[in-house]
Amino acid sequence: MGKAIFYHAGCPVCVSAEQDILHLIPGNQVEVIHLGTDKSKITDAANAGVKSVPALVMPNGNVLHINFGASIADLQ
Amino acid sequence: MGKAIFYHAGCPVCVSAEQDILHLIPGNQVEVIHLGTDKSKITDAANAGVKSVPALVMPNGNVLHINFGASIADLQ
Repeated sequence: MGKAIFYHAGCPVCVSAEQDILHLIPGNQVEVIHLGTDKSKITDAANAGVKSVPALVMPNGNVLHINFGASIADLQ
Repeated sequence: MGKAIFYHAGCPVCVSAEQDILHLIPGNQVEVIHLGTDKSKITDAANAGVKSVPALVMPNGNVLHINFGASIADLQ
């Protein structure tokens, strides 16, 4: 399988999710693309089925759209 | 950091997302809990901030809610 691609747009939620994801997925298995600074990739993302960011496009073509919920730490 | 916890409920979308996630995250870094068969864990999940499944609860307490988009393969 190829790499997964994590698309984000640099918002605080995206960056937080990115850090979380990258803690768990080995770095050589995921490519991170910042659509805010690399606008040429937006078409690629859309063609891959990305409807919102952050999103993780799997090597098999599945797209996992990620909604970041409230952090427990923020609630305490 | 401790393990992440992947909560799901056995629906096809959950199972597909589970397979995707488990391909990327080393098995010793994620615990998988099926809330459909292990209902005693539902309260834990709710207390962790899980609003929908599938969801990935990070070791730092962040909750990533996952929406599975259409598979590219399904569109072709």
